[in-house]
Amino acid sequence: MLKFIALSGTTGVTENLYVHEYKDEMIIVDCGVGFPDLEMPGVDLVIPDFSYIVKNKHKLKGIVLSQGHEDHIGALPFLLREVNAPIWCAPLVTEFIEEKFKDNDLNLGDIKINTFNPDTAVFEIGSFKITPFRVSHSVPDTVGFLIETPEGKIMHVPEHKIDQKSVDGMSFDIQKAKTLAGSGVLCLISDCLGSNGPGFTPSGTEIEDIMYKIAQTAKGAVYISAMSSSIGRFQQMINVASKLRRKVVFVGRSIQNKTESAHKLGYLKYLDNQVVDIKQSKKLQPKDLLYIIAGCYGQIGSSVYRLATGDDDRLSVSTNDTFIFSADPAPPYSKESQDFVIDELIDKGVDVHYYELKEGLHVSGHGGQEDIKMLFDIANPKYFIPTGGTIRYMHAYEKLVVETGRSKQNVFKLKPGEGVVFENGNARRGEKIPVKEVMVHGLGIGDIGKVVLGDRTLLGKQGMVVVVFKATKQGKVLGKPEIVSRGFVFEGISGGLINDATQRLMAIVGNRKNLNTKILKEESTRFLENYFFKATGRSPMILPVVVEV
Amino acid sequence: MLKFIALSGTTGVTENLYVHEYKDEMIIVDCGVGFPDLEMPGVDLVIPDFSYIVKNKHKLKGIVLSQGHEDHIGALPFLLREVNAPIWCAPLVTEFIEEKFKDNDLNLGDIKINTFNPDTAVFEIGSFKITPFRVSHSVPDTVGFLIETPEGKIMHVPEHKIDQKSVDGMSFDIQKAKTLAGSGVLCLISDCLGSNGPGFTPSGTEIEDIMYKIAQTAKGAVYISAMSSSIGRFQQMINVASKLRRKVVFVGRSIQNKTESAHKLGYLKYLDNQVVDIKQSKKLQPKDLLYIIAGCYGQIGSSVYRLATGDDDRLSVSTNDTFIFSADPAPPYSKESQDFVIDELIDKGVDVHYYELKEGLHVSGHGGQEDIKMLFDIANPKYFIPTGGTIRYMHAYEKLVVETGRSKQNVFKLKPGEGVVFENGNARRGEKIPVKEVMVHGLGIGDIGKVVLGDRTLLGKQGMVVVVFKATKQGKVLGKPEIVSRGFVFEGISGGLINDATQRLMAIVGNRKNLNTKILKEESTRFLENYFFKATGRSPMILPVVVEV
Repeated sequence: MLKFIALSGTTGVTENLYVHEYKDEMIIVDCGVGFPDLEMPGVDLVIPDFSYIVKNKHKLKGIVLSQGHEDHIGALPFLLREVNAPIWCAPLVTEFIEEKFKDNDLNLGDIKINTFNPDTAVFEIGSFKITPFRVSHSVPDTVGFLIETPEGKIMHVPEHKIDQKSVDGMSFDIQKAKTLAGSGVLCLISDCLGSNGPGFTPSGTEIEDIMYKIAQTAKGAVYISAMSSSIGRFQQMINVASKLRRKVVFVGRSIQNKTESAHKLGYLKYLDNQVVDIKQSKKLQPKDLLYIIAGCYGQIGSSVYRLATGDDDRLSVSTNDTFIFSADPAPPYSKESQDFVIDELIDKGVDVHYYELKEGLHVSGHGGQEDIKMLFDIANPKYFIPTGGTIRYMHAYEKLVVETGRSKQNVFKLKPGEGVVFENGNARRGEKIPVKEVMVHGLGIGDIGKVVLGDRTLLGKQGMVVVVFKATKQGKVLGKPEIVSRGFVFEGISGGLINDATQRLMAIVGNRKNLNTKILKEESTRFLENYFFKATGRSPMILPVVVEV
Repeated sequence: MLKFIALSGTTGVTENLYVHEYKDEMIIVDCGVGFPDLEMPGVDLVIPDFSYIVKNKHKLKGIVLSQGHEDHIGALPFLLREVNAPIWCAPLVTEFIEEKFKDNDLNLGDIKINTFNPDTAVFEIGSFKITPFRVSHSVPDTVGFLIETPEGKIMHVPEHKIDQKSVDGMSFDIQKAKTLAGSGVLCLISDCLGSNGPGFTPSGTEIEDIMYKIAQTAKGAVYISAMSSSIGRFQQMINVASKLRRKVVFVGRSIQNKTESAHKLGYLKYLDNQVVDIKQSKKLQPKDLLYIIAGCYGQIGSSVYRLATGDDDRLSVSTNDTFIFSADPAPPYSKESQDFVIDELIDKGVDVHYYELKEGLHVSGHGGQEDIKMLFDIANPKYFIPTGGTIRYMHAYEKLVVETGRSKQNVFKLKPGEGVVFENGNARRGEKIPVKEVMVHGLGIGDIGKVVLGDRTLLGKQGMVVVVFKATKQGKVLGKPEIVSRGFVFEGISGGLINDATQRLMAIVGNRKNLNTKILKEESTRFLENYFFKATGRSPMILPVVVEV
């Protein structure tokens, strides 16, 4: 009996974490983070619930990673605190993991990373025989896996496009995947995010030419920004710079780190004299420079944000400059923040090229309907499990299965924690593993729940009022309560309001006998809630404190 | 000397408010609200800064309104508290204003509304001779104005598309506008929001057919949602229902109110027996019903939201039902909230048709590049002022001016409060009127500023810690301080943390002499900030309170 569990990574786009279990052996595919939504104020990251893995850690034989994006590897530092298991991944993924641990002052300790060659590797983890094969994506060294188990062959492709002219030189290895699938696999587990998009997702080879044409006529400096893992896109930018005899300046640590890793592996090609640092660039004319700059979504604090707001000591834009955003806004990245920097740059007179002008400066890393259907053909599976997309995409994927002549009954649309059991060539729904959302804020992992988020939401929208009473042990209120507010009303005009509230509150609780602390708190909260709502139409959090004197 | 001031409505899409001034006479064009962004937590609305108008209210002769959308009329109740001036507007706008005042239990008092016929009206307000002319938009009775002044002719078109086959039957009256402009106007003030969009914005006549084809194959109930002022779209829905012999049910107060107003004026045509209410609909089969339902962006609390979350006693969806969103998400409306209800409905088995499927179920009410250029041709202005769009659209509009052979120097890109002075046929920049953002929250207007918003942002992301000391008048701390937190850490595990913080704080301030209240507050705040950051990586607001005993 083979069990597959989507611990996370379904009904959502990120936070990939999948479990394959055969008898007392378990492997994990991917271990990524998710990003907080508007209902999670203050939260830095969301990570999968590892409880099931920790409970069964004696079974865990290995962690297999399909690519280097954060939503596939970002939760490793959290998981590896709780379990120890060897990792298998491609060279660039190893680089990214090592850099991640170094950057966060973490220690990989005795965790073994088995770096594999996606073209030639075959490895066994217990009863699982795993063969990676190249798929195309927006970061090099992305793979799918053929997982041979005693119950049959599973093809697991967390993200892919079929792209045969990938700009990073790493195309989908159709022939190998077909050979591995043979006459067909038992189940295909694959990404559904593009299932609403008609056609194939394009390669993006033409982006180089489009960037070249824009940069060619630029009078001043050229700035280009893309996601920091877009190595293929960076190669295109370097090629543009090279043709125009502009020197390249990498700006921002995330881009510097990732381009260095890719350069080291030979995935990003440039000569040493093609690249200068910011300091050296000062000696050159703007027209001789092409900046590859981090922060394509205008993230607060990023290099693009600081450049756009004029808050960078080292760099500033002028009216002759050109800025190319080679990244369309897409969840979980904020359109608002990108729009903000775009408008700031335009206002400073910069010639800005961005998504809305539809110049073709970006392509997605996710396959469209034809990519997905071609993967169906390659794998020829009996069963299907869509992952890496919200509910609409899981349904659209199911539609594609039906459109290509397969049965709807053979598609398993899983919610996080749900799984499928394979036995004797057949599949059925497994039991549901209870999982919860684990939020990370600062050093705290999983200590934020509904109560804290509810309080934050209220505090953040309405502010708060603290009322402090002095009272005897018997609950007799002594003197006037003190009322302090924050985030509620403008202090300058709140004086009268607070004074009036204090007087009225006194009239109610000042002469009451037989008040205990609990009743005093309840009554004053109720009174102040009503009073402030009537007076201001707002509902701040009321926090009563009773000091015993 | 004629002065034009964009008090609001430039560098932004909403909050339209424009002033035309000649000698001691002033008129206002439009008076709309804006919507809070993510940096304005808790804020309900943003309204223009009326200070300049109030200061010059003796000059104010009239308020002229171009259409019935909230961002053109929504701030009237706020303005009319401070000034009294007659209003001029088209019939449907009068209806919407009266409904707005009634709905909010407000009294129009002695404000006079002069309802004009957009086809025939000419009226004078002091030295301003004003002729409205029909433009096409997403709500009927939208107009532009030819404003004749002693300094020359101004064409003011707050929003438009050129559409000659408008689904509400109200097309752009090109001939009239041309005649009014004559050989050309002094200045065109017009909307720039569509200036990045190639071509003409389509009419949307084909939407009826597309909705019909979807509804025709529907087995169960059909739900359609659009913005509540989309009268033309509602007519198309009613036509679809009529062809399919389905009864129409209007769900949600905003849609009920607005369709009633439009029906009364003859802008929305249906027979009484075509429409049933929810109660009557219970006696019919789902296949005989077409619901026109409010809340197309999934706004929390709206009819669509309650239907999608299963939180409506009167209505619920089943797997045979079909839902058509005839409204694409667009700022200031949240894509997140619409996406949420779409996924909820799909998860309940409903066949959902929405923006991402690109079925052509929505068109914008704003003109594209060709609409804008045609307006240039109609008006043939010497000067141009783009309004109703963010900085990028003002620049793109300027590009269109240049592309059509006019001079960039003749375009005035204004920030809120900036203006243009016209004299002897020439224009120059006027002085800048200081304006601020006026936020409305509950009953409070303009009492929220940077401090309150900053506090809310901090409280909302990090929570707060209140520390209460008992101290003598001389500042000697008595006993242990009490520490209470909200929105900071999970209470269950915070006990140890708070205890430890209390002990350490005592060790620092407990035996100190010569502490006064100010120093005690400062030192304890500093200590707790550091302590909690080190322990949790979070930075809650620290609020120290000293109770004198």
